[in-house]
Amino acid sequence: MTAKKSGGLADVIAGETAISTVGKEGKGLTYRGYSIHDLAAHASFEETAYLLLYGKLPNAEELAAYRLKLAGLRGLPDRLRRILEQLPSSTHPMDVLRTGYSALAAYEPETDGGNPLDLADRLLACCASILLYWYRFHADGSRIDVEKDALGTAAHFLRLLHGKTPDALHERAMDVSLILYAEHEFNASTFAARVTASTRSDLYASVTTGIGTLRGPLHGGANEAAMELIERYGTPDEAEQGIMHLLAARELIMGFGHRVYTVSDPRSDIIKSWSLKLSEAAGNRRLYDVSERIEQIMRREKKLFPNLDFYSASAYRLMGIPTSLFTPVFVMSRLSGWCAHVMEQRQNNRIIRPTAAYTGSEPQTWLAMEQRD
Amino acid sequence: MTAKKSGGLADVIAGETAISTVGKEGKGLTYRGYSIHDLAAHASFEETAYLLLYGKLPNAEELAAYRLKLAGLRGLPDRLRRILEQLPSSTHPMDVLRTGYSALAAYEPETDGGNPLDLADRLLACCASILLYWYRFHADGSRIDVEKDALGTAAHFLRLLHGKTPDALHERAMDVSLILYAEHEFNASTFAARVTASTRSDLYASVTTGIGTLRGPLHGGANEAAMELIERYGTPDEAEQGIMHLLAARELIMGFGHRVYTVSDPRSDIIKSWSLKLSEAAGNRRLYDVSERIEQIMRREKKLFPNLDFYSASAYRLMGIPTSLFTPVFVMSRLSGWCAHVMEQRQNNRIIRPTAAYTGSEPQTWLAMEQRD
Ligand SMILES: CC(C)(COP(=O)(O)OP(=O)(O)OC[C@H]1O[C@@H](n2cnc3c(N)ncnc32)[C@H](O)[C@@H]1OP(=O)(O)O)[C@@H](O)C(=O)NCCC(=O)NCCS
Ligand SMILES: CC(C)(COP(=O)(O)OP(=O)(O)OC[C@H]1O[C@@H](n2cnc3c(N)ncnc32)[C@H](O)[C@@H]1OP(=O)(O)O)[C@@H](O)C(=O)NCCC(=O)NCCS
Repeated sequence: MTAKKSGGLADVIAGETAISTVGKEGKGLTYRGYSIHDLAAHASFEETAYLLLYGKLPNAEELAAYRLKLAGLRGLPDRLRRILEQLPSSTHPMDVLRTGYSALAAYEPETDGGNPLDLADRLLACCASILLYWYRFHADGSRIDVEKDALGTAAHFLRLLHGKTPDALHERAMDVSLILYAEHEFNASTFAARVTASTRSDLYASVTTGIGTLRGPLHGGANEAAMELIERYGTPDEAEQGIMHLLAARELIMGFGHRVYTVSDPRSDIIKSWSLKLSEAAGNRRLYDVSERIEQIMRREKKLFPNLDFYSASAYRLMGIPTSLFTPVFVMSRLSGWCAHVMEQRQNNRIIRPTAAYTGSEPQTWLAMEQRD
Repeated sequence: MTAKKSGGLADVIAGETAISTVGKEGKGLTYRGYSIHDLAAHASFEETAYLLLYGKLPNAEELAAYRLKLAGLRGLPDRLRRILEQLPSSTHPMDVLRTGYSALAAYEPETDGGNPLDLADRLLACCASILLYWYRFHADGSRIDVEKDALGTAAHFLRLLHGKTPDALHERAMDVSLILYAEHEFNASTFAARVTASTRSDLYASVTTGIGTLRGPLHGGANEAAMELIERYGTPDEAEQGIMHLLAARELIMGFGHRVYTVSDPRSDIIKSWSLKLSEAAGNRRLYDVSERIEQIMRREKKLFPNLDFYSASAYRLMGIPTSLFTPVFVMSRLSGWCAHVMEQRQNNRIIRPTAAYTGSEPQTWLAMEQRD
């Protein structure tokens, strides 16, 4: 153990949750008691979000109603669209989302009388709308209709992005990806969102905190960083050389390692299988083969395993998603987890206010201006 | 001790800091080793911000240069002003600030090559500009020039708000208030900002996290809530009756109590003395006398002491500041502490990712749609 091993609240229990378990036996993941394997095999993202937010799996009627509810909440206020148009094409898409949600609070504020779950559904429903209204405005100068068709979250995103209804394989791959990203206990962005909620601030504040925190490359930003890495290499052998070089230079390889999982990230094998399916459908295994080689090297050299972000990168590329939108897709999904955690934090709240070990100077006597260096 | 006493990371050491000490002997506060009493008596806000950010008290030359630097950074990009104009007058001013800073990232992003301290100074310098451009646009339809005159932070704020140069008493009272609010170790908003920084996200992300977290009534929002309370009572005797009633109903009295201070909040007596000076200058002690009575009752009934937010309320009202701008003034000042903490977090970073005690359901076998209730 090096000195760096302390800090970062590693292994510190910062509160209670009934929403998920991460890393039981070093590798498991459950949402409300259901295993991520079952969810990824059988559920849709809407079903998963309902489970997280409402605490139970919806029956057929509830699910149909929930899908319709979300589909009916995709529109954006005019003035929010004007704001999005003011953000230049060079804006980091995570900054677009953060600004969009922050501004939405001005038009549809959380009120004491309102049901916070309705607001959570609203925030969940309009993520692709905010992101892709802005994106398409700059990409092809169009002011797209973000409410077109009553689609599920995955299809809505892909349709707005590409301007056409996605094929079934892409839609399901995106749906599974959203399931995998939906919730992850006290990860940094969720924990930060709970700190925000603990002052009794509103849901918008927690969500903007979540977005800002997810943006960093040690967290959600890792999927974008992983893509940049994987794309550098034309072949597995090139990757082998490149990665060995980076490891020798003691660089972090984004998309590997985890604070809580010690054996493996159960989400990785699932998204890996989708990355393979998408590669074969596209008739191009380059990114997949390069990724697999990097996985082997990391296991061999560092005993590190890929986390969800690593194979998500190639999967997203194969769905035609630009790299800069990878972390925003993570937001589209994790909003469900953030909102569920904010509701939970409110149920039994105490302000989250830790303390610090002081390492600064001793008490100083005052120095008049003339006495200063 | 009730069960509620656990949680909220109370007394948990979440990291190291050299920036400030809070609550040594239950009551002290130092910034970089200098006592808050000396700072409030002798320093200006710019001097204090420099101390926090640059780690030493500036000499005369450095301070003059720093004041000029900040004064030169007050302008807002055109498109940001357009965005602010899209936010209706009903918007919570904290949401205006959060949206404004979030959007500023689009025009002046943090870059790898840039000096983060320059960006911190920029963010510090333009707070009143964002807030009051929006405020005056709605209050009197004017598009004010936010760069007028090379003023200090306190004077700049009061001038933009009232449209005229403040008198010396108001300017110094505001200056002292900004000194008192500048920094407070791992309070909730600063800690949340550090969690955001710990993913290697950018300074804008940390600042928007800070604003959203400060907004809650258990934290920065307490000064607004205290004002609403104090203004309810026409006389100290009315206050006595009202507060006894609220205490009997087990209501929280905003502006009292503290996680870390156990004896007193050293900032309270300082701002109280300014509240008295402002009352006497105004020839109206009503708010002050009501406040003092509430202080007596809280001490007598609950052994609780006022925190900084309590007498800040009457002081701000006496400076003609609308209640809805109280917490934004806190932002104007605390930006210095947040930015200092982000720099510190970056120096020795590890992602802040605690864990949770699981209280949810046992592993569930999958339920097919038809089997669900
Ligand atoms: C996820 C992560 C932030 C966890 O952080 P942590 O629990 O604080 O782990 P540590 O930084 O203490 O890592 C332990 C050791 O493994 C090394 N390590 C961890 N992840 C690594 C990676 N991706 N590449 C290379 N080395 C890595 C660390 O350098 C450290 O080595 P040391 O003991 O010689 O200093 C970290 O693994 C990481 O930075 N991964 C890359 C970013 C990423 O993929 N994030 C998405 C997470 S879902
Ligand atoms: C500041 C504050 C959030 C600290 O929270 P904390 O450390 O978790 O303190 P607790 O909530 O555990 O308070 C301890 C006890 O004092 C009581 N208490 C604390 N502040 C109180 C207040 N302002 N009014 C009435 N009772 C108060 C609590 O109800 C609790 O009583 P209990 O033991 O019977 O449950 C809390 O004092 C508070 O809510 N104050 C009002 C908001 C405020 O002024 N915030 C600005 C802080 S600078």
